[in-house]
Amino acid sequence: MFETLSVDRVYEAAERIRPLAHRTPVMSSRGFDEEAGLRACFKCENLQRGGSFKIRGAANFVLSLPREELPMGVVAFSSGNHAQAVAIAARFAGTHATIVMPSDAPRSKVEATRANGARIVFTESLAEREAVCRGIAEETGASFVPPFDHPWIMAGQGTAGLELIEEVPDLEALIAPVGGGGLLSGCGVAVRAVNPKIRIFGAEPAAASDTFLSLEAGEHVGIEPPVTLADGLRTLRPGALTFPILKSLAEAVVLVTEDEIAAALKFVLLRMKILIEPSAAVAVAAVLFRKLPAEVRSVGIIVSGGNVDYEVLRAL
Amino acid sequence: MFETLSVDRVYEAAERIRPLAHRTPVMSSRGFDEEAGLRACFKCENLQRGGSFKIRGAANFVLSLPREELPMGVVAFSSGNHAQAVAIAARFAGTHATIVMPSDAPRSKVEATRANGARIVFTESLAEREAVCRGIAEETGASFVPPFDHPWIMAGQGTAGLELIEEVPDLEALIAPVGGGGLLSGCGVAVRAVNPKIRIFGAEPAAASDTFLSLEAGEHVGIEPPVTLADGLRTLRPGALTFPILKSLAEAVVLVTEDEIAAALKFVLLRMKILIEPSAAVAVAAVLFRKLPAEVRSVGIIVSGGNVDYEVLRAL
Repeated sequence: MFETLSVDRVYEAAERIRPLAHRTPVMSSRGFDEEAGLRACFKCENLQRGGSFKIRGAANFVLSLPREELPMGVVAFSSGNHAQAVAIAARFAGTHATIVMPSDAPRSKVEATRANGARIVFTESLAEREAVCRGIAEETGASFVPPFDHPWIMAGQGTAGLELIEEVPDLEALIAPVGGGGLLSGCGVAVRAVNPKIRIFGAEPAAASDTFLSLEAGEHVGIEPPVTLADGLRTLRPGALTFPILKSLAEAVVLVTEDEIAAALKFVLLRMKILIEPSAAVAVAAVLFRKLPAEVRSVGIIVSGGNVDYEVLRAL
Repeated sequence: MFETLSVDRVYEAAERIRPLAHRTPVMSSRGFDEEAGLRACFKCENLQRGGSFKIRGAANFVLSLPREELPMGVVAFSSGNHAQAVAIAARFAGTHATIVMPSDAPRSKVEATRANGARIVFTESLAEREAVCRGIAEETGASFVPPFDHPWIMAGQGTAGLELIEEVPDLEALIAPVGGGGLLSGCGVAVRAVNPKIRIFGAEPAAASDTFLSLEAGEHVGIEPPVTLADGLRTLRPGALTFPILKSLAEAVVLVTEDEIAAALKFVLLRMKILIEPSAAVAVAAVLFRKLPAEVRSVGIIVSGGNVDYEVLRAL
């Protein structure tokens, strides 16, 4: 039990987001299992509303806001899945969302966010986006929806793990990709509460190993802006709230190369017939290329999303 | 009730193939429904064992053979999904399969078939493959597994429709792609038995409209070898047994262009995050591009398979 997150908060989040988030299917594949040498269960958040797990945290956050704050709207920064998720959650809650995006965000993401009714504000640099966002919040009274480092967000993301472990209680291990750590901390708390013996792993691109390095050092380590296919995992350091939880729960963070990410995405597409995004492929690659301890015989993989830019897919 | 196929045969097939074929999920997509202007339910045979519905018919056929014939093996001709399905079914039944393939078959299909334990025999021309196949059957005593025109095959394929209509009984219409007609005739018989008012449609590439033309003429019409992305639908005429059933059950066969096939495949991949093959995209395209009568408010689509050659996918 952590100060910022207990499994009870995850159960409450599950109730709260039920009208908005899908209960996604758990898939398995004989071909994958043969290749990976263990039994893998895929929690398919690529089939989630908005195309990723992010709707879980965003919905839990927006629906946890005091009723009187809702009319002022919500604001968030994101060029990707969090943007769409916040837009969908705001519309569902009957309020409006402003999303701060870099001016070079892929058009498909901008359009998808706008299609969900959000107002878009562009910023020139990554550095100023949080400031712009907080400026809008102060000016308009809108509530800021953080991407990962908040108990409501972590609890929401944890519902993916809860659903998975309810469906497959006997898993020996869980693995999820790590960006800011909201997904793995939430899911870790949830699965450990249901199955106290489960082993918990994170996965990062070798090119974006901030959490790997931080766990090694035992404290927050920052990295330079990384170059990786996994656009959802380009965070520069673990969260203030997520890191202590990961430090306590995660046995290791496994690193994968860019080639392994691409190969895992292709394997899942051509053999399992589902489209996963590069960030999700990071966790899949860790299992497919046998980077878990050899004695692990079964693993649940949180397949975090399926939003791939057409040009990126083409390039693979 | 047809002489060659009744719903009871489909129910029996469902029992028989249960250990071998998956019960595939039925998916839906808000985004697709908005685009298509109706409610669509996707029966995901792309997630089926072997990557297509073909395992249903092949398994029902192999498992219906008299026990004393099994040791002599089975033989089939196919460069695609039927090949893998027969190989999987034969291995499951404890016998061996010989698959006759054109010498220019895509390497991925050859490998997949071989990986399922089948022996491959190559022929030079399309014309001689049936003869080669029947020659092997006579020489070795192996049972010939036809691709579509047999009551056991039709009954097996019908189990896809049965599962769909059991899960969504109130569908107003059903649509499936038509090659030889085994899938649509089997599914048509099954869904009509459960829901007598359901409207039944086929879908063909405009470039391979043999069943469309045959229904217009009221008799079998043959076509020249067609050029279409939908490699599973390149049959030259409807089956002797399937055609009378389609004539009686199907209200129309809807035609789609090659561009519409490619667009439907891409829409489903990028928006719904699942990979479907061009032949499956034919039925999806018919719905997406609003070719059903305007008053149809809900439709079940048999998404026949997900086996796409990597180079084909890249070219899209």
